[in-house]
Amino acid sequence: MKNKEIKIGLLGLGTVGSGVWEILKNNAAAIEERSGIKFQIKKILVHDLKKKRSVDVPASLLTIQPNDILEDPEIDIVVELLGGILPTQNYILKAIESGKEIVTANKALLAEKSEEIFQKAYEKSVSVGFEASVAGGIPIIQSIREGFVGNQIEEMYGIINGTCNYILSEMTSRKADFHSILKEAQEAGYAEANPDFDVKGIDAAQKLSLLTWLAFGVLPHQGVYVEGIEKITPLDIEYAQKLGYVIKLLGITRKQEEGIEARVHPTMVPQDHPLARVNGVFNAVFLKGDAVGEAMFLGRGAGMMPTASAVVSDIIRAGLSRSVLKPVKPVFKSESMISMVSINELHSEYYLRFSVVDKPGVFGQIAGCLGEANIGIAAVYQKENEVDSKIPIVVLTHKTLEKNLKQALEKIEKLEAVLDTPTLIRVLAHSGNK
Amino acid sequence: MKNKEIKIGLLGLGTVGSGVWEILKNNAAAIEERSGIKFQIKKILVHDLKKKRSVDVPASLLTIQPNDILEDPEIDIVVELLGGILPTQNYILKAIESGKEIVTANKALLAEKSEEIFQKAYEKSVSVGFEASVAGGIPIIQSIREGFVGNQIEEMYGIINGTCNYILSEMTSRKADFHSILKEAQEAGYAEANPDFDVKGIDAAQKLSLLTWLAFGVLPHQGVYVEGIEKITPLDIEYAQKLGYVIKLLGITRKQEEGIEARVHPTMVPQDHPLARVNGVFNAVFLKGDAVGEAMFLGRGAGMMPTASAVVSDIIRAGLSRSVLKPVKPVFKSESMISMVSINELHSEYYLRFSVVDKPGVFGQIAGCLGEANIGIAAVYQKENEVDSKIPIVVLTHKTLEKNLKQALEKIEKLEAVLDTPTLIRVLAHSGNK
Repeated sequence: MKNKEIKIGLLGLGTVGSGVWEILKNNAAAIEERSGIKFQIKKILVHDLKKKRSVDVPASLLTIQPNDILEDPEIDIVVELLGGILPTQNYILKAIESGKEIVTANKALLAEKSEEIFQKAYEKSVSVGFEASVAGGIPIIQSIREGFVGNQIEEMYGIINGTCNYILSEMTSRKADFHSILKEAQEAGYAEANPDFDVKGIDAAQKLSLLTWLAFGVLPHQGVYVEGIEKITPLDIEYAQKLGYVIKLLGITRKQEEGIEARVHPTMVPQDHPLARVNGVFNAVFLKGDAVGEAMFLGRGAGMMPTASAVVSDIIRAGLSRSVLKPVKPVFKSESMISMVSINELHSEYYLRFSVVDKPGVFGQIAGCLGEANIGIAAVYQKENEVDSKIPIVVLTHKTLEKNLKQALEKIEKLEAVLDTPTLIRVLAHSGNK
Repeated sequence: MKNKEIKIGLLGLGTVGSGVWEILKNNAAAIEERSGIKFQIKKILVHDLKKKRSVDVPASLLTIQPNDILEDPEIDIVVELLGGILPTQNYILKAIESGKEIVTANKALLAEKSEEIFQKAYEKSVSVGFEASVAGGIPIIQSIREGFVGNQIEEMYGIINGTCNYILSEMTSRKADFHSILKEAQEAGYAEANPDFDVKGIDAAQKLSLLTWLAFGVLPHQGVYVEGIEKITPLDIEYAQKLGYVIKLLGITRKQEEGIEARVHPTMVPQDHPLARVNGVFNAVFLKGDAVGEAMFLGRGAGMMPTASAVVSDIIRAGLSRSVLKPVKPVFKSESMISMVSINELHSEYYLRFSVVDKPGVFGQIAGCLGEANIGIAAVYQKENEVDSKIPIVVLTHKTLEKNLKQALEKIEKLEAVLDTPTLIRVLAHSGNK
């Protein structure tokens, strides 16, 4: 029996597109053996036909006309690697309209427009693969949808931005400050010239939106609380170590009685938690299901080949889907049906660092404000023998409501002896691999 | 549109079967929403109709006649949770013959009979799901087959026996010996009354056979080298820590130029490797693909609900497959086509411990034997100030060929001052999450 042939149109031939080309070429025989399908890239949309490229693609495959792909009835799968919202959204909708399967790595678009895209795909009986959009080298989307399909997911959290994890890892291992490591990361290509999208947590928040949808059926358009890593200092990292923690930027989504929490912020991760050892550009996602218990996935979060590997996995799945599998009706619960929990309602332990004038009685004043708000203190570190007249006081709190803590911090900030805005870092709830 | 109904026959209602019943009952609505299929358990094969059970199953579903399931044309999926080779194999073949999808957790059967079972299933166009057979709580089989389908797997290794990992973890954290921890584990239900199947590495070897097939297409019937954990002593664990390692029972399968290595043995894992932190009954599998790079999966390897979660994932997949998806032709490369590499051809670093008479010149004799065989020494520890006349000497070698090392060890064992058979533990090749 001859194997089925499936034709692909690529939108974009940048880093990931070139990786997809390489994998489909180099591993063609293995892929055909495993899937029973012969995949062929028929057309590739590029900006510039004459640009010199790192991969050896025949010039005849390149086009600058999107419709050469979107309107070609022979093309079965459209792989979108352009990024951005417009005009990409229109290309995808047009491809769906023409009955083509979609594979995309575009988390920004999906975090905003999933409802429309998935609903349209369902109506047209085509699939939308987006494994590459979250933690490229980790098949986390497939695992949630299929491997853990029999579970109610209870919580999911992880390191989902490689740039931030690289910066925090280097700050930790080399006791260096944020700006100098960021500069190095930019020179090494691990961070963009404009790093805000990564270091402010926006990229992680888009990915967390998709994970929240997969876990709980809700795409939280406005509901993700975001805090970046710009304010983390070597001093906080040092205290974290003394207290038994490592600072990581985590995306956290959890089902609570009151609703769903979805938040991205620097987090104190216990040193014996498996996530504490995930360094450099690696990503890792930890989850808890009602049947399966705790599980963790670790892999490269970005980069040419890991992301391309995820895209190829989706292409093959789309090819099989094309042959036979009908998509399942997408479910998007509204944020009003399942309420999102505000960060102010969070119950957590907190790491607090105050910068104070070095004179007697200051800690007593701070402790007084915390005590009034009923916030228990688990540990205190106060640096002694400082030459400086300005010293840090570090407090680890017991579990408390964030709203109450913030009120107490407002009072503390107004104390005469307190010099700067207090630093607040949330502590990861203890669970996991024990 | 009404959702499709799929009927299931369960062979066995032990721990895992009861878990499957619970999940399909408790998460029925979510499963139907996610898959578009309504699953119903129609019949359950048991040994004893009157036995008191932990789950509330209607008596009308129970039968002691396998054919009530195997010959019922209404049953779409047969879920085999009996274990053992016979008569289980015949039940599975008969169910396939009748065109039923198969889900099984039976690693012993698959490690021996996969070729026959998968070939027959392919001929009958039915699927065989076996996610639960290796590392229950980790969707590793699905990830290799689909998530990493575009990759050539280069190596895969992991902790795939929870009993051994529990024993080694406890020995490490409590500095206790093998036999006392084994006894405790048996009392706590983490180890069987007859523990040989686990502690001698046989269970891990069966799982490694399946992983080797998934990664490289070869089912190594005789080719897995197996060594258990019975001989690991607290002394070795102590020295491992001093040298920067943790001792884990690993299953390792790697593609080398000369062929495929498949081996199960206690291994020195560097303390900064992600596997070093996987403790207790957790399993973890680390792999390297040519595109995706390094990835690791961690989860509960056994137990009622994690294993049942994997079975349910396979049931849902079989349901979808039933509706639409045709199985792919199974590939079994013969062991003669891709040669299996003998453990004697392994290149590795080694931890060696010698028990010697405490007198001058003994280490010189040992070093002489190693030197003659061209084996480089990376580190030596010799305990001083011992009251005993018998002292340990620990040697960490550079990379060397196992065959040469064994010849040298034979000579060393014959030295008058050497009291016992030397202890040999292989060191994990350095790679991974850096």
